Amino acid sequence: MRVKCIVSYDGSRFHGFQVQNRERTIQGEIQKAIKKINEVETVIHASGRTDAKVHAVHQVFHFDTEKTLPEMQWKRAINHFLPNDIYILDAQYVDENFHSRYSALKKEYRYLLSTKEYDPFQTNYIYQYGRSLDIDLMRDAAKIFIGEHNFASFCSYDQYGNTIRTLYTFDIEEEDGIITFRLIGNGFRRYMVRHLVGGIIQVGAHRIEKEKLLEMLESCGEKKCLFKAKPQGLYLQEVYYEED
Amino acid sequence: MRVKCIVSYDGSRFHGFQVQNRERTIQGEIQKAIKKINEVETVIHASGRTDAKVHAVHQVFHFDTEKTLPEMQWKRAINHFLPNDIYILDAQYVDENFHSRYSALKKEYRYLLSTKEYDPFQTNYIYQYGRSLDIDLMRDAAKIFIGEHNFASFCSYDQYGNTIRTLYTFDIEEEDGIITFRLIGNGFRRYMVRHLVGGIIQVGAHRIEKEKLLEMLESCGEKKCLFKAKPQGLYLQEVYYEED
Repeated sequence: MRVKCIVSYDGSRFHGFQVQNRERTIQGEIQKAIKKINEVETVIHASGRTDAKVHAVHQVFHFDTEKTLPEMQWKRAINHFLPNDIYILDAQYVDENFHSRYSALKKEYRYLLSTKEYDPFQTNYIYQYGRSLDIDLMRDAAKIFIGEHNFASFCSYDQYGNTIRTLYTFDIEEEDGIITFRLIGNGFRRYMVRHLVGGIIQVGAHRIEKEKLLEMLESCGEKKCLFKAKPQGLYLQEVYYEED
Repeated sequence: MRVKCIVSYDGSRFHGFQVQNRERTIQGEIQKAIKKINEVETVIHASGRTDAKVHAVHQVFHFDTEKTLPEMQWKRAINHFLPNDIYILDAQYVDENFHSRYSALKKEYRYLLSTKEYDPFQTNYIYQYGRSLDIDLMRDAAKIFIGEHNFASFCSYDQYGNTIRTLYTFDIEEEDGIITFRLIGNGFRRYMVRHLVGGIIQVGAHRIEKEKLLEMLESCGEKKCLFKAKPQGLYLQEVYYEED
């Protein structure tokens, strides 16, 4: 039987999602919890990784099991064995054709930034930028990225392969001094959201013009974006599948 | 010269306020920062201690110094040497008669509780109670404590001396599933806020009646309150002085 889970986690005290030998990771903690129920080593498959300090509101993963628990018991059972910074919001049986990563159609990320005075309670959750940004300029520049593009200049240096992605939404809203960047795309490569937001922040701070970002985008990796927003403000908000 | 500071801290990763030999404490971190400016060991005096995992929105402390920095530079200088979970909101020169603890007239604490589903992002900041509570019953019971009383039944076991305090305010508000308990008094002994809130929660959960709390209060320490709310939801909100 295949189980699909929706999970929320505070990434502050993790070395990212992917399991590592000695470090505390989200995948590692979840696999330890599920092993206690399944009684065998169980590998989980997520919609994608998140980096160290990055959070998730609704991350999705699946795993296969021989245990035939009633569907409604899975959520409580896994949560029972999880640490307090990871929480399963939903668990249900799905068709074996479902795959958290390959069945995903769209992903939504959010990035939070504060323009207000430093707040020690927000330091792991909202980037403490502490100055105002020009919202209209940023909104205008964000349009550059909408549509299908080769995002090579906005990806990690260490990644090869296909860097073509489609960005559907790049919204920017401000409320009470907190700016929320909302990106929806068919997929995001490593560091891509942080580079896109990082570049846009430079425009909002009047440090570069949007033409500079367009140049980077059109260079397809030749002119790399050197501005990468901190991981602390980043949230994997939603993963969209056909059935949703 | 005497400097008065208003400080905000996320108590999650501290072993409380008071300096200890090997543990990370708020006082310890602040004294290390000030020593780098003063170039001599400097003891700070706070309005009172906070326990492990308890937060402060506006805690007050003072210290004496031979350094004659311009007043406006103190805030930036101390913050420069502080870790990211402590932040000085204000620093100013005050009369040498001012004492953070002895000059304080009133203190305000807040306690936050969530009646909603568990949220891994709130676990260090809002008590994840996860069930509803009867607000009207709690408000009615809270009136018992208003005025001057011997709060011995609601203090730490390990404290002796004067347990008479005056409580001016014990408000309870609910918004979007978050209940805020707001207490203002002329002083609070160790664990007093957590015992008062803990007792009131029992009433709101229909586990005890308010008469039981009255009995405890009137017993002056004979019938101890055994309900102590977790430290994670507690905030030292404000310290009031004559000049405010």
